[in-house]
Amino acid sequence: MKTMEVVLARPIVDVPVTSDFQVRERDVPDRLDDGQLLVRVLYLSLDPYIGSVLRGRHMGARAPAPGEPLPGECVAEVLRSSAPDFRPGDLVTGEVGWVEIGVLDAGKARLVDRAAGVAAHLGVLGMPGLTAWAGVTQLARVGAGDVFAVDAAAGAVGGTAGQIARLLGARVIGIAGGPAKCALVRDVYGFDDCVDYRAPDWADRFAQATGDGPTAYLENVGTAVLDQVLARVRVGARIVLCGMVDHYHGGPPAVLPVVPLITRRLHVHGLVVYDFLARRQEWLDIAIPWMREGRLRPVEDVADGLANAPAHFERLMRGHNQGKALVRVDAGA
Amino acid sequence: MKTMEVVLARPIVDVPVTSDFQVRERDVPDRLDDGQLLVRVLYLSLDPYIGSVLRGRHMGARAPAPGEPLPGECVAEVLRSSAPDFRPGDLVTGEVGWVEIGVLDAGKARLVDRAAGVAAHLGVLGMPGLTAWAGVTQLARVGAGDVFAVDAAAGAVGGTAGQIARLLGARVIGIAGGPAKCALVRDVYGFDDCVDYRAPDWADRFAQATGDGPTAYLENVGTAVLDQVLARVRVGARIVLCGMVDHYHGGPPAVLPVVPLITRRLHVHGLVVYDFLARRQEWLDIAIPWMREGRLRPVEDVADGLANAPAHFERLMRGHNQGKALVRVDAGA
Repeated sequence: MKTMEVVLARPIVDVPVTSDFQVRERDVPDRLDDGQLLVRVLYLSLDPYIGSVLRGRHMGARAPAPGEPLPGECVAEVLRSSAPDFRPGDLVTGEVGWVEIGVLDAGKARLVDRAAGVAAHLGVLGMPGLTAWAGVTQLARVGAGDVFAVDAAAGAVGGTAGQIARLLGARVIGIAGGPAKCALVRDVYGFDDCVDYRAPDWADRFAQATGDGPTAYLENVGTAVLDQVLARVRVGARIVLCGMVDHYHGGPPAVLPVVPLITRRLHVHGLVVYDFLARRQEWLDIAIPWMREGRLRPVEDVADGLANAPAHFERLMRGHNQGKALVRVDAGA
Repeated sequence: MKTMEVVLARPIVDVPVTSDFQVRERDVPDRLDDGQLLVRVLYLSLDPYIGSVLRGRHMGARAPAPGEPLPGECVAEVLRSSAPDFRPGDLVTGEVGWVEIGVLDAGKARLVDRAAGVAAHLGVLGMPGLTAWAGVTQLARVGAGDVFAVDAAAGAVGGTAGQIARLLGARVIGIAGGPAKCALVRDVYGFDDCVDYRAPDWADRFAQATGDGPTAYLENVGTAVLDQVLARVRVGARIVLCGMVDHYHGGPPAVLPVVPLITRRLHVHGLVVYDFLARRQEWLDIAIPWMREGRLRPVEDVADGLANAPAHFERLMRGHNQGKALVRVDAGA
């Protein structure tokens, strides 16, 4: 059997662009080893951390060489199984990669509930949602009376984080790039307000929108916005840092100014979502009912067809995505 | 009546040195206003934050002009009182300044227990002790099983913080400059170990001394040592920043690297001791019995006579003090 796959055409030395990738055909193994699953990918998740993996800058992960499989979380349907706990037709998530049909170790596959949706398992119910839940509820500990602000508010983590904070009783202010994203954040995600950081007076507008400044803040982009926010947060604010996308591709290392950290008595927490994988069910138990009731909106930015994955990834790297970046690999999904 | 006082001889533009000050005589008012106390200073506290006040860099405080009174916490004996709650002979603490005899508003004076010692009210029982207590117990929440490390371990805050952590069951490693300070930290303060940051291999020695790295760390000097420590702390470590003495006098602003903060899932807390003034009694209730039992050692670095305050302050600014920097202003104290 043959499948299409996307691989690197060359080593990545800067922010990855479409032409860094190539689509090609490869063989799918005829036989499965014990404990393996043959799966058809329905959706491939494109995430900012992949950009740092491709450059060998992600927490010790080796960069894939040109022609080697690319990392990517997928939601997929089991075609054949040599593992006792999985059957053809099961819906699973796991790191199948940038392929249409692939092999997955059953030990690394997770059976998911088809009734809760398909694509959502990569977004609100997947890693971005878990990141948002961990940041908002476990580290920033947001609740009623808080003013919560979040950067990249149109993105998967930011958009979910703000919705969670609002459902927990906080006033929620987003920061996003451009009027279209801000409209999405306000009108679809339901934030109380959203500030466009491309406006020259955005920091003043942000200060106004938050009243006396946010009491809690989540940053997953970089230090350009963070520095301005730190100068305006409330004394005693909780700051969660869960990624520095802007710094994954070179330039000087990201740094935090110490003076506001001390004079404003901040509490700054580093977040790595892997720490919370074992607690995913806690989040699902909250999120699935919220989704059913229409109170938590999954907003996805979907490209169709694996061949469009490189262009969609470039769009994500440029920050042009609105919501969770996904590729619908199987047209019937 | 006349008193000696120390004032600035010129505006301070760099780290203050002895020749920036002058000693002179001035009049003491013959009459007290209602609510004032005339006091004889027994000990004057010299603290790093004064260096930033003198340069106008301390949280909004105006720098004193040449000839104006200098700020300084003192322990003093009441000579005359026009306030109902204070009598001659009472021991008080308050900001009397760099003088032998001064006037203090009763509302800003605090009656202290002579039985608990005199100088200790400016050190272990004063602001440095309260800072150490707040950092160790309220922000880093150190307890049994922790490996606690602290910079400037021979200083008032660091030396007290390490002793508190050890009394709470932590293994405690100090960082200090030079063999004499390290001996003090080990032999008098009773730390488990102390590393001399002047040794070229100090960061490796520090890593060894802490085993797998500290689980909690308190920094009150600057980022030179902090950067090395952050590269070696345990995942999930709590970091308390309670001052950046090295950055009070110019140079580039202090910054923290974000990468270890995220990848090591750190919790960083800014500490301003004023937030804990209302809880001082909680600390005294613990500290005074510990001192009586000889388990908490106040170590003081005392100069004799107000005229020696400038040189002693320069010594503090150069980091040469060993323990709390004090001036014994009254030879009989």
